[in-house]
Amino acid sequence: MRKLGLVGGTGPEATVLYYRGLIAGVAKIKGPEALPKLSIESLSPFEVFEFCAAHDLTGLTDYLLDAINNLAAAGAECAALTAGTTHLVFDELATRAPIPLVSMLDATRNEAQAGGVSTVGLLGTAFTMNSDFFARSFAKAGIKVVVPSAEKIAVIQKMIATELEHGIVKEVSQQQLVSIIKEMVAEQGIEQVILGCTELPLILNDTLSPVPCLDPVPLHISALVNYITS
Amino acid sequence: MRKLGLVGGTGPEATVLYYRGLIAGVAKIKGPEALPKLSIESLSPFEVFEFCAAHDLTGLTDYLLDAINNLAAAGAECAALTAGTTHLVFDELATRAPIPLVSMLDATRNEAQAGGVSTVGLLGTAFTMNSDFFARSFAKAGIKVVVPSAEKIAVIQKMIATELEHGIVKEVSQQQLVSIIKEMVAEQGIEQVILGCTELPLILNDTLSPVPCLDPVPLHISALVNYITS
Repeated sequence: MRKLGLVGGTGPEATVLYYRGLIAGVAKIKGPEALPKLSIESLSPFEVFEFCAAHDLTGLTDYLLDAINNLAAAGAECAALTAGTTHLVFDELATRAPIPLVSMLDATRNEAQAGGVSTVGLLGTAFTMNSDFFARSFAKAGIKVVVPSAEKIAVIQKMIATELEHGIVKEVSQQQLVSIIKEMVAEQGIEQVILGCTELPLILNDTLSPVPCLDPVPLHISALVNYITS
Repeated sequence: MRKLGLVGGTGPEATVLYYRGLIAGVAKIKGPEALPKLSIESLSPFEVFEFCAAHDLTGLTDYLLDAINNLAAAGAECAALTAGTTHLVFDELATRAPIPLVSMLDATRNEAQAGGVSTVGLLGTAFTMNSDFFARSFAKAGIKVVVPSAEKIAVIQKMIATELEHGIVKEVSQQQLVSIIKEMVAEQGIEQVILGCTELPLILNDTLSPVPCLDPVPLHISALVNYITS
């Protein structure tokens, strides 16, 4: 089994999700007494926010690369970022990292590609929807990533910051998201929708959504389990 | 803030407890946007069980030391073990580790010492109750650690393995533990009781127990938070 390094802490609860998911995934393939070989470097979401707010991509890259170098020093043979946002600088990191990186974006794209779709919608924080990192990865498979209107982006950003991040799930917000997705289906022709923020699966799923959801975290965990056990 | 290395995975849920506890503890002292600098090496409880079952303390020490060396290579300035059982070889590890180790046993002993007690009871797995690692640490403060009779040790071991480890809390078992503690108070003069197994706080607390409980995990987390923030 390959030893995996996780750049965690951005935020901490997603790190717990990855940790438990990797342990459950490895046990499923290798048996209940098999555990992943794992190193975790726990960083700060607030430092990431600051780099992003200041558009300091060099600072963000150096901050994450430092963690990856520590993971490699601890014997990790491959590494992964545990936040969507930090994938903004994934390509640069992959070039400079001493060990291979397994991308959340590519894991999500592979699922969309397996579904044979040509256009997917992206929901997430305003920062993620206004960035092109999902689009760049999906373009490699010829899949177009589209986002809602600026007005709807503001609605979703507010919902994530004031409700979902505090664990509050309102039915009215759920209906709002469903109608945003319906509009994207009608006007932009989306066939699937990426839940590009770890809080969105709290409020959206395949049953509620008019099109199938792509949930990057479990897809990423599954790709990592395959990578380290194969 | 000092960077802390955690030897985790033994078991994984206790690692999550430490991770969340350290983050909450640092936030309480340093503010909500302060996170601990943290590296985690995740090992396997099953490997630890095997070393213990084979009485291979050299193997266990090397296994844990390897993780501590990885943590030091990742920049950790101090380290901690996240399982009571692995403290069996704490003294040997502390001598050989390249960075200082913060002991769960000493954190628990300091609390007992602050309470001014001279005799404490120890409950835990049969392995822990039959080992002297708690006793050796407490002896440094002149505090005696006593355990129940062999018959009662077997009862508690079965309770942990067949009920508590599966999250089952039976009232009859609770009463059994309380009467074991009462007996230890009457016959051995214990003034406090160590919950020396991470599952025991599920079934015992200060309200139920005839004497105050010493819960090593939160005491250890609190000692670690003080160590890294001071």
